[in-house]
Amino acid sequence: MKFSTIAEKIRITATSSLATNPDHDPELTGVAAVDEARPGTLSYIEGDKFAALVTTTGASALILPQDEGLQAQATERGIAWLSTADPRLGFARAIALFYTPYRPAAGIHPTAVLDPTVSYGANVAIGANVVIQAGVHLGDDVCLHPNVVIYPDVQVGDRTVLHANCVIHERSQIGADCTIHSGAVIGAEGFGFVPTAAGWEKMEQSGIVVIEDGVRVGSNSTIDRPAVGTTRVGRGTKLDNLVHIAHGCQVGEAVVMAGQVGMAGGVKVGNRVILAGQVGIANQATIGDGAIATAKAGIHSDIAPGEIVTGIPALPHKVFLKASAVYRRLPEMYKTLQRLQKQLQE
Amino acid sequence: MKFSTIAEKIRITATSSLATNPDHDPELTGVAAVDEARPGTLSYIEGDKFAALVTTTGASALILPQDEGLQAQATERGIAWLSTADPRLGFARAIALFYTPYRPAAGIHPTAVLDPTVSYGANVAIGANVVIQAGVHLGDDVCLHPNVVIYPDVQVGDRTVLHANCVIHERSQIGADCTIHSGAVIGAEGFGFVPTAAGWEKMEQSGIVVIEDGVRVGSNSTIDRPAVGTTRVGRGTKLDNLVHIAHGCQVGEAVVMAGQVGMAGGVKVGNRVILAGQVGIANQATIGDGAIATAKAGIHSDIAPGEIVTGIPALPHKVFLKASAVYRRLPEMYKTLQRLQKQLQE
Amino acid sequence: MKFSTIAEKIRITATSSLATNPDHDPELTGVAAVDEARPGTLSYIEGDKFAALVTTTGASALILPQDEGLQAQATERGIAWLSTADPRLGFARAIALFYTPYRPAAGIHPTAVLDPTVSYGANVAIGANVVIQAGVHLGDDVCLHPNVVIYPDVQVGDRTVLHANCVIHERSQIGADCTIHSGAVIGAEGFGFVPTAAGWEKMEQSGIVVIEDGVRVGSNSTIDRPAVGTTRVGRGTKLDNLVHIAHGCQVGEAVVMAGQVGMAGGVKVGNRVILAGQVGIANQATIGDGAIATAKAGIHSDIAPGEIVTGIPALPHKVFLKASAVYRRLPEMYKTLQRLQKQLQE
Repeated sequence: MKFSTIAEKIRITATSSLATNPDHDPELTGVAAVDEARPGTLSYIEGDKFAALVTTTGASALILPQDEGLQAQATERGIAWLSTADPRLGFARAIALFYTPYRPAAGIHPTAVLDPTVSYGANVAIGANVVIQAGVHLGDDVCLHPNVVIYPDVQVGDRTVLHANCVIHERSQIGADCTIHSGAVIGAEGFGFVPTAAGWEKMEQSGIVVIEDGVRVGSNSTIDRPAVGTTRVGRGTKLDNLVHIAHGCQVGEAVVMAGQVGMAGGVKVGNRVILAGQVGIANQATIGDGAIATAKAGIHSDIAPGEIVTGIPALPHKVFLKASAVYRRLPEMYKTLQRLQKQLQE
Repeated sequence: MKFSTIAEKIRITATSSLATNPDHDPELTGVAAVDEARPGTLSYIEGDKFAALVTTTGASALILPQDEGLQAQATERGIAWLSTADPRLGFARAIALFYTPYRPAAGIHPTAVLDPTVSYGANVAIGANVVIQAGVHLGDDVCLHPNVVIYPDVQVGDRTVLHANCVIHERSQIGADCTIHSGAVIGAEGFGFVPTAAGWEKMEQSGIVVIEDGVRVGSNSTIDRPAVGTTRVGRGTKLDNLVHIAHGCQVGEAVVMAGQVGMAGGVKVGNRVILAGQVGIANQATIGDGAIATAKAGIHSDIAPGEIVTGIPALPHKVFLKASAVYRRLPEMYKTLQRLQKQLQE
Repeated sequence: MKFSTIAEKIRITATSSLATNPDHDPELTGVAAVDEARPGTLSYIEGDKFAALVTTTGASALILPQDEGLQAQATERGIAWLSTADPRLGFARAIALFYTPYRPAAGIHPTAVLDPTVSYGANVAIGANVVIQAGVHLGDDVCLHPNVVIYPDVQVGDRTVLHANCVIHERSQIGADCTIHSGAVIGAEGFGFVPTAAGWEKMEQSGIVVIEDGVRVGSNSTIDRPAVGTTRVGRGTKLDNLVHIAHGCQVGEAVVMAGQVGMAGGVKVGNRVILAGQVGIANQATIGDGAIATAKAGIHSDIAPGEIVTGIPALPHKVFLKASAVYRRLPEMYKTLQRLQKQLQE
């Protein structure tokens, strides 16, 4: 594919500009990371860490940020380039031009076990050994990979893909255009037990899980249903692998949670929140819209909209950075303090 | 169901009392969270955070704590109520009056693959595509959901439920009345490797996992078998999702572990211990009966019975709270210290 | 088996020595942990914590460290022993003399679903309900336990074992002599999304996962494929359960990662690195050869070869130990500081 064609197809915003030398429009056969790129491939550069690679990359074409220095270096090395405010987005779109994701053909594999009451739309693909219980409805173009198990009365929206071995429990509602990755478990009963003199007594979990449209659930993640009401994951939210969403959590729209994030029961997460890897949130805490928790933060109380928090327990990010910078000097501070105290006593 | 009937059925302790106005005994059709309750439903109130909701809830009946103020407010709003020392327990029992959990009918699905040596008691339910290897015995009323895999020589006690896609490895012994949630893996070989000049040499894991009666294992949790001897989870213990119990751990009775707790090999956890979310425990540590570790605690040494610990490394909870309150003042302390030092030098 | 035979078979290095009293060569029937050992069993002692057990163990024979005191105590109690620089390695080899791991017979179960284009070597064992898509190749002696799902175009090397319910995604390359434990998910698409005004736009994950020879992947662990290029786990590396390796990570050889370790995209881990439980590593960080991160460390930047780090954010281990020892004195330091300040003002 000609570079000019790619550039045309991935043009993103009015702020994008395109290097237009018509004599330098290489034929490209693929995409690659900038440090692994070979002639004939397109790559991209973003961020200070990778900028220097413009002088060494083997790529024949680059998507660059709006940085004239980088552009000049690319030109000098005979690399075709376009520049945009968001090279990573441009690269994402370029990958899609060269890559056809695996997608099973429509049809129901003869080994799949569907209850007679199951209903489904057009063009569904149901893989080998899939098991679907009574009262389930699948929308158009739903794809269930092998060994998926769906408990009774589940709804799955149009075009949603469930990867191998994931399990959707009774009464869950999965929206359209979702991707549920392998091994994820959605709608299992929440961890509800009440202490009694005779031990932990189970609280039945009669609620449901609702996953709105466009949600991504990572491999082996778990989202539990509550005792009453709904555990909800909002439209367009993306969860990485091994994430745990407990019973009764309300997760907003366009939220991102990185790997191994966990939240206890009844947590409320606003829209466009970002939770980095291994963040934990305690029972009933509320995280405001647009807040960010950095990796491993431990959140025990409410976080205001837009706030950035870090640490265990979580503090405002800047406060944490300053405090943690001093932390390593604690032994020295302790000694100094003892010395001063002695001096003053004398 | 009449409120008076519910009240009768869930009466818990001698300390419960019941509002007895015979003219106000509403017919109830379900249960709901207090902030989502609509007329015709029963809810409950517990803790300061929710007390104010007595003035706004749509519930027709409430289970209240023994708080005369709340009772008066409920009465004033025409809400039928009963009060008890443990409203949450009352509510748990009320849910069970309205909710029938999903339970597959007894029988063995024709697609299940059972070795001829498998034996089982009365009324077992074995779902589609379940695979059971040689020498396995299932007790009465055992329920295996679809795609469960059981390796050889496993014992499963009466009434135990294994949810979809969970895997029980060879020789594991699962007690009666257990619930193993979807995707859990029990009895896989522990992480035993010995460093040698040629790399990590595997230590065969010849031991077994024993899960005693009444245990709950959460979705996608893992419990490994040891090199020799037993990894044990005691009677009535409840594990949340994505919990990791390594080879040779001895977990006591009525323990609770929240999501993503992990413990290294050979850890001993006493009875009635509570481990909050994402707690980690290092090799061979012993946690005394009734101890509590708060969320994200990192435990590297033994914890005394009844102790409450917090932090990484874990400290007595009160010590941690005081220290962490000062932590954010570290930069200010550092500056003050430098200033004082200078003053004294002058 | 005679103790002398065992001693002969497990002899490890030139530094091993063997107690040679020919009159005391007990017949042994098994192996056991030193605190659970009964007459007729062999056990081992390693480390100060267990040394005292030489006086109480019921074992008839022991593998001891090169410690004359322990040897004398064992002799006095009539326990046969051998001593070696690495008793644990000796014990590992002794277990293997008594234990035959479960291994399904070769053959393809009639319920397995193999695409006609699947190819495989000699003596493969393919369990019930396994599903293998087009273009997959399995080497000799590969063992797939029940309900494994393999997406198209995967390669699996000789003698590799895939336990029940694990999922290998398209184009992954698994080496020889690997063990992939139950529920693990390898090669699923990485967590690649680009923020746009319209929400998170998916970056297709066109790369692959390569698992080199001799790798162990723990139960329910996840290893994702990247947008372009390769996610790699090097030869002989051992991963415990619930580990998360994100898209584009490069993990070296003979690395060990304990349970619930997680790493973000593009992390580079050198050879022989040890990551203890629940360690987290942020995007693009590089961990040098032989570095060690202790449990729960949060790594945000590069770690030099051989360095030992601890804490969140990770510090050199010794620095952390000293600082964390003072941490609990923070309240006392704060008060002292205020008092000194007041004194100086007066």
